[in-house]
Amino acid sequence: MAETSGPPRAAPIFERICLIGVGLIGSSIAHVARHKGLARTIVVSDASSDVRRRVAELGLADKVAETAEAAVHDADLVILCVPVGAIGEVARQIAPHLREDAILSDVGSVKNAVIAEVVPFLPQNVHFIPAHPVAGTEESGPDAGFATLFRNRWCILTPPPEADPQAVARLAAFWSAAGANVEIMTPAHHDLVLAITSHVPHLIAYNIVGTAADLEEVTQSEVIKFSAGGFRDFTRIAASDPTMWRDVFLNNKDAVLEMLGRFTEDLTALQRMIRRGDGQGLFDLFTRTRAIRRGIIEQGQETAAPDFGRRKAEPNGE
Amino acid sequence: MAETSGPPRAAPIFERICLIGVGLIGSSIAHVARHKGLARTIVVSDASSDVRRRVAELGLADKVAETAEAAVHDADLVILCVPVGAIGEVARQIAPHLREDAILSDVGSVKNAVIAEVVPFLPQNVHFIPAHPVAGTEESGPDAGFATLFRNRWCILTPPPEADPQAVARLAAFWSAAGANVEIMTPAHHDLVLAITSHVPHLIAYNIVGTAADLEEVTQSEVIKFSAGGFRDFTRIAASDPTMWRDVFLNNKDAVLEMLGRFTEDLTALQRMIRRGDGQGLFDLFTRTRAIRRGIIEQGQETAAPDFGRRKAEPNGE
Repeated sequence: MAETSGPPRAAPIFERICLIGVGLIGSSIAHVARHKGLARTIVVSDASSDVRRRVAELGLADKVAETAEAAVHDADLVILCVPVGAIGEVARQIAPHLREDAILSDVGSVKNAVIAEVVPFLPQNVHFIPAHPVAGTEESGPDAGFATLFRNRWCILTPPPEADPQAVARLAAFWSAAGANVEIMTPAHHDLVLAITSHVPHLIAYNIVGTAADLEEVTQSEVIKFSAGGFRDFTRIAASDPTMWRDVFLNNKDAVLEMLGRFTEDLTALQRMIRRGDGQGLFDLFTRTRAIRRGIIEQGQETAAPDFGRRKAEPNGE
Repeated sequence: MAETSGPPRAAPIFERICLIGVGLIGSSIAHVARHKGLARTIVVSDASSDVRRRVAELGLADKVAETAEAAVHDADLVILCVPVGAIGEVARQIAPHLREDAILSDVGSVKNAVIAEVVPFLPQNVHFIPAHPVAGTEESGPDAGFATLFRNRWCILTPPPEADPQAVARLAAFWSAAGANVEIMTPAHHDLVLAITSHVPHLIAYNIVGTAADLEEVTQSEVIKFSAGGFRDFTRIAASDPTMWRDVFLNNKDAVLEMLGRFTEDLTALQRMIRRGDGQGLFDLFTRTRAIRRGIIEQGQETAAPDFGRRKAEPNGE
């Protein structure tokens, strides 16, 4: 096969990757796969004809298929990038059309529920290796993706115990080449870890924005004006895709309710400290929480630049 | 008086401003006052000798006084930039030394409690006009300040009903010249508005970081690794100054407990939706919250650039 011009690059990890669903994550995978030469051919499909049209305009893929069934044809890697609630139906549709020895993966934010949805339809000789790249922005849709979204983020794989180690290694190599650090854990542990690091934070962000919107003594205009006091940071999270997040909460119910229970217990204790005027207790907690942030910055999961002030964002900043 | 060289600027609004306490806010006021020529002379003091030394090194002021009493001498504007819990004691110290007709103000995040602390010491012929610039970053200390912190943020004044309109107008002019939009309201309303836009958001951010730190099933290392799923945004807020925030909660107890009660009620309803699998209820809330974010972006209190991904912060970003 003739080499394309440009800088030399490693051989593609996959011949033909297929992405079903082209939102933020799907489009970011397409960008990075193209940019890094991770696949010879990129085929995508999306249930929405508007999205398919937009993907074609953006030139995100080599081929935009009309249906998921057609898209998966001959692909050696198929990644389901649809909301968790839609995964079972897509799996049912594509299962008979999957190539033998194909790797089937996903990017869902919950893993036990995804496995339960997909496994009943799984053909013999297809390697199902669930995955979750822990990365995102508050934007959605095919225009939102970019090639560096996964860089220095973690991608969690939750292969079943009987998974083919070579298939797991190939998928891990794909995500590493996309810039991510790869970690392997059980689906149940994934769901617990993400409940506290992602799902409950989103839930309480959505909740406080809702609480603020419903007040009568404080107008919505006042909430907006004075949001720089801390509130606006929650609205960023609470602007995330509603369908995706509905599905996360419906499909990680047990772990979310467990972590939410602990959050509420702790909040009740904090409430009591305020009511009783326990300044030392408040001070101790507020000091302890700084250590975790230091760890996050040290491990490159966050920038240390002060961002509350949004200095860079200021028009005519001096 | 000889004009200094450089571009022509308006006459200073104050002859001599005095800042007691040089943390993030105090140092930012010093920067902007210098930069915009808002005062002929800037005098500062701080209870910490380390901070005083650092302020002198940074050249933030024309004069660094050893004591608050000495600092306020002959100042026509004195701004108390100390934590709310220290304001009463500072007011007691400086009261006998305030110049006649001086304006005394502050930057505290609560207003009713500050007024209750200060008023008993207030001399006749001093204009006490409490203020709260709603701006900040997660950084603290004299190195954290910068001249544009207040630009396009709101500064709330809560003058007493009998306040001299001219004094109020001068302080408002000062904050406008510092880049802020000025709003006037009662102290009680201020405390309610800030409880929901700032105090409760900080409280729940501190709380979830504490909850995550205490888990046994999920290690601290895992919390840090997978924080890009949403959690890290809370750690930014939960890295704010512990002393300042302890004092806020102790001094705005009623409004915080009231707003926290509503937050908890709403969270309980959300918890029930998850338990019962009410996808429509979740979807409706998650959609509604997007409107508030749009308002915040439209009013310039936030940037629309996707920030979850921290694209700009990436080293070697492509």
